[in-house]
Amino acid sequence: MQTQSFRISKLVVIGAGLIGGSFALALKRAGAVAEVVGISRKPGTLLQAKQLGVIDHIGGYDEASFSGADLVLVATPVGQMGKVFSAMAPLLSAKTVVTDGGSTKQDVIALARTHLAAHLSRFVPGHPIAGTERNGPDAAFPDLFKDRRFVMTPLPDNTRSAVELVRAAWEICGAKVSELQADEHDALLAAVSHLPHLLAFALVDEFAGRHNGQRILSFSGGGFRDFTRIASSNPEMWRDIFLSNREAVSAELKLYRDKLEAVQQLLDAGDGPALEAVFERSRMARERWL
Amino acid sequence: MQTQSFRISKLVVIGAGLIGGSFALALKRAGAVAEVVGISRKPGTLLQAKQLGVIDHIGGYDEASFSGADLVLVATPVGQMGKVFSAMAPLLSAKTVVTDGGSTKQDVIALARTHLAAHLSRFVPGHPIAGTERNGPDAAFPDLFKDRRFVMTPLPDNTRSAVELVRAAWEICGAKVSELQADEHDALLAAVSHLPHLLAFALVDEFAGRHNGQRILSFSGGGFRDFTRIASSNPEMWRDIFLSNREAVSAELKLYRDKLEAVQQLLDAGDGPALEAVFERSRMARERWL
Repeated sequence: MQTQSFRISKLVVIGAGLIGGSFALALKRAGAVAEVVGISRKPGTLLQAKQLGVIDHIGGYDEASFSGADLVLVATPVGQMGKVFSAMAPLLSAKTVVTDGGSTKQDVIALARTHLAAHLSRFVPGHPIAGTERNGPDAAFPDLFKDRRFVMTPLPDNTRSAVELVRAAWEICGAKVSELQADEHDALLAAVSHLPHLLAFALVDEFAGRHNGQRILSFSGGGFRDFTRIASSNPEMWRDIFLSNREAVSAELKLYRDKLEAVQQLLDAGDGPALEAVFERSRMARERWL
Repeated sequence: MQTQSFRISKLVVIGAGLIGGSFALALKRAGAVAEVVGISRKPGTLLQAKQLGVIDHIGGYDEASFSGADLVLVATPVGQMGKVFSAMAPLLSAKTVVTDGGSTKQDVIALARTHLAAHLSRFVPGHPIAGTERNGPDAAFPDLFKDRRFVMTPLPDNTRSAVELVRAAWEICGAKVSELQADEHDALLAAVSHLPHLLAFALVDEFAGRHNGQRILSFSGGGFRDFTRIASSNPEMWRDIFLSNREAVSAELKLYRDKLEAVQQLLDAGDGPALEAVFERSRMARERWL
């Protein structure tokens, strides 16, 4: 970690919720940032973020807010990023590095190429693989990224110093930083993140839509609670993720539906040994991963 | 809670693992049992249970072990219960009440009708809706059932005193006791417990079976970890549950596959509002349930 020499004079966080707020809090706690300006389309979010000490100043899309900024983190839902990039583009000075926290990368990069074309050398796309089912500044906490992955998908256009600044900032937050190509990122996340979210949302909605939905849910236990925790996630954010990464998620969903068809055949055939083999392989793979 | 007058002189726990062990520990902590005898097909489990103080004595299918027992809890995988009932049947005195902790009830009742026919008035089927992905006596802890449901599916043959003894014992463990018909129990649990386990096992196995399985898993975060926690559950136990409750689980799996087909259509059509509506309904239902 490059903590010793690293210091940001001014950080601008756009979307001061769980991700943006936790990033600001982590850098503040480390003494790595002097001033945090928050920007959001929701005035209530900004007031709350300021009251909680997540940000120091409430900003907007104006010169004062962006002037002298070393780093801008765009931590809005992916669907907002086109507007955000477009609004901030004329306000960025040559020295300001921009990064984002979007859960999909190819679409964010395409938006940046459209709206931040003059600033691409200093736009470093990224994705902190961390979160909770809660959102908003009151959900933010400085340890959110501790020992979690931050995946960077740097552009060929990026300057080395911009990439290193983004890397150093996330390392100070406690994240394990790695680099991927944007398409590989999106394919991997479709599998281990986007698909499970879709499955959890679908399962709860399936039960909730029945006439005895609440009664069914009332007999669930800890397994169901954990399995569906991610179904309490932000609907707008996840709508955007699925639209952004639609093809990769669709491919994963198709593979999973084929898998379920095979499992249903084992079940209907009463094939105990084959079912147990699936469970055993699954348990072992999970233990190895943990 | 009937804690004041309730006291068991002798409890026999068959299968001294997570469920049986936690039941024994909870009753011991409450001072509600004088002596706990453990029986298991695994000698190592019994030695460990005794060393940990989960049981007082190692027993077997003999008169000494069952003589004077007020209560027997059969907490083995459902697939073992036929053998267990058959082995214990000649050893039960008229005063001994028997219950079980099986996750399915119609099949356990059928086994009891076959193997415990002479003792049906005192066999009270039950299911504590609690557990963790761990098993064995070292996973047991006395608070496992605190504020969890214990569902009884009493038989028409049961005596009132047998039902009340089982109810009182689980209430002392901190469980919220309710009664259901066995078929309703199995249908509800197929939905909220058995299906999610199948989905989690299938998802991990799907990734694990790919050439880059470990790499895929290495990019997962907390959402995936919680979603798949139940995929670390005991494969044998779950094989038995799926075989026992095959029809109900198969029906739920079919409904869920239909749901996923509908979700895939929304996804492939890029229908953002409809996807967001699914997510919103799901989140609200889950919040209401919590």
